[in-house]
Amino acid sequence: MKAITVKQPGGADQLQITEQPIPNIKSDEVLIRVKASAVNRTDIVNRESSGGYLDTPILGVEVAGIVESAGVNTTLEVGTRVMGLVNGGGYAEYAVMPANCAMEIPAHLTFEEAAAIPEVFLTAYQTLFWHGQLQEKDAVLIHAGGSGVGTAAIQLAKQLVDAKVITTAGSQKKLDFCNNLGADICINYKEQFFDEEVKRITNHVGVDVILDFIGASYWERNLNSMKVDGRWVLIGVLGGAEVHNVNLMALMGKRIKLIGTLLTPRSNDYKSKLTADFVVNALPFFATGQLKPIVHRVFPLHEVQQAHIHMEENKNIGKIILRVDETMKNA
Amino acid sequence: MKAITVKQPGGADQLQITEQPIPNIKSDEVLIRVKASAVNRTDIVNRESSGGYLDTPILGVEVAGIVESAGVNTTLEVGTRVMGLVNGGGYAEYAVMPANCAMEIPAHLTFEEAAAIPEVFLTAYQTLFWHGQLQEKDAVLIHAGGSGVGTAAIQLAKQLVDAKVITTAGSQKKLDFCNNLGADICINYKEQFFDEEVKRITNHVGVDVILDFIGASYWERNLNSMKVDGRWVLIGVLGGAEVHNVNLMALMGKRIKLIGTLLTPRSNDYKSKLTADFVVNALPFFATGQLKPIVHRVFPLHEVQQAHIHMEENKNIGKIILRVDETMKNA
Repeated sequence: MKAITVKQPGGADQLQITEQPIPNIKSDEVLIRVKASAVNRTDIVNRESSGGYLDTPILGVEVAGIVESAGVNTTLEVGTRVMGLVNGGGYAEYAVMPANCAMEIPAHLTFEEAAAIPEVFLTAYQTLFWHGQLQEKDAVLIHAGGSGVGTAAIQLAKQLVDAKVITTAGSQKKLDFCNNLGADICINYKEQFFDEEVKRITNHVGVDVILDFIGASYWERNLNSMKVDGRWVLIGVLGGAEVHNVNLMALMGKRIKLIGTLLTPRSNDYKSKLTADFVVNALPFFATGQLKPIVHRVFPLHEVQQAHIHMEENKNIGKIILRVDETMKNA
Repeated sequence: MKAITVKQPGGADQLQITEQPIPNIKSDEVLIRVKASAVNRTDIVNRESSGGYLDTPILGVEVAGIVESAGVNTTLEVGTRVMGLVNGGGYAEYAVMPANCAMEIPAHLTFEEAAAIPEVFLTAYQTLFWHGQLQEKDAVLIHAGGSGVGTAAIQLAKQLVDAKVITTAGSQKKLDFCNNLGADICINYKEQFFDEEVKRITNHVGVDVILDFIGASYWERNLNSMKVDGRWVLIGVLGGAEVHNVNLMALMGKRIKLIGTLLTPRSNDYKSKLTADFVVNALPFFATGQLKPIVHRVFPLHEVQQAHIHMEENKNIGKIILRVDETMKNA
């Protein structure tokens, strides 16, 4: 089969189409004929790093496609349209998925739309509800509102618990988009100090939960924005990893829970529990249209280099999708 | 009644015996004839600070004594021997206690012993189990093993969930004491790098929970000692509050929960829930002798200045108790 691997750790130009064996499945796995995958920042980190934590040389941590064959200890039927997390190997014509990570695709969604769901919606669900313990009517500050996880988190916070959603982004276009997704307050971080806005909006109480993709450069302002007993979920360091002055008394005084987390390196057991919880509590909202996958742009898989560059330029609102189709055969 | 108040924010010499009115109780409170109180670091902070978060000018956040009168919405009988948290006002002949914070004193314990229980055992219980989610057989690193909370935490971790208890202290006397309390590994932080010992002992896995009273000066070594998915509970900054280089990627990579917390400023509702949970799950172990209050030294209340200086000299193992007795009448 055709698949995307990395020549040498480095830039997008290191991505190449190679011929790889169709992978074997274990008894609790299914083989997916991939129709679409999606680009995630973890793919870029993996592309650049020499090690990488995944077993396969093929990039990609989520797919949508059709069950081609199923292990003996699974209940999924061949032919079922599914989407879900994979432990690497998503940028390919076939991929292995733990059966417990497979979610049936809601009938009205295309494969490209379905591939925009697993990673960002599961991450947003995990961070908001499992870690952030977001409750009905809580206030939540979601940074990078236009990002894949941002657009998912805004919708989940609004539709599942009617949270007061405050979001930041760097362009009017992104802010308008966030507003349309249901965000109550949209702050342009280039024009306003978000902590001052948060204080004003919350009557100096602060927010219950922060979803932080930014890290160092927002540290002080996030601290200022946090409510007493707030949960600060750290899932990215786009603004740097090194904070030079952390005041621990402030963390204690506000009794803050600072929770560092990542989804991809977690165990299958964890991912399958998260998937099961999401299927019960969030997936039905896709059928009703209250939750929507946000597809920014679809690239054919052989244009994976352009797709990576597109993410690195940071212009996307929502997901960058890779379509696997007949064009691959001739690539 | 006689009570201890602060002349001007400052040193132990600012503590004075004054005449104060016996406080009034609300319908859900009880008035305690105080037999013993105890010194806590929060009292020293309050003595030194101009503001303070407590309503009464009288220091002291825990007492043991006898119910003198009870509000109409309480079920406690006058004459009951009780111990518990108070919202200030503990260094006095009489103190107000929310009825839900009162615990009956196990029959074989003296008032001085009982006064050594509430603050440190509730804090240790809250941090280990509510925040740290310490599980059966988990490994826990307890700093300041000879401190009040340290001695309580060692016992709770060992007796309630048979944890592997690793503790640090700065003298052989304290380490021997910790060992007798049940600590499995006792590290002299002046002679060994505790993170290297933790790595060696846990086969480079790290500990599930850290109880951190130290803060800045232990930051890197605590990070090194932490297991993936570990819980790091920050309840003191004896080693400084300012950390100058915090690597957020390390927090994310290990998926660490860093939990800043304090007990004293929390609501009555929180304290009463914590007390209720403690009464069910920990208090019975005092009756069997598996948990023991650790009394370092008892001072009569009129020697409160010496008692504070004693804590500031950091030589105590366990609690410094203030006895309220007839000597007060002539002070």
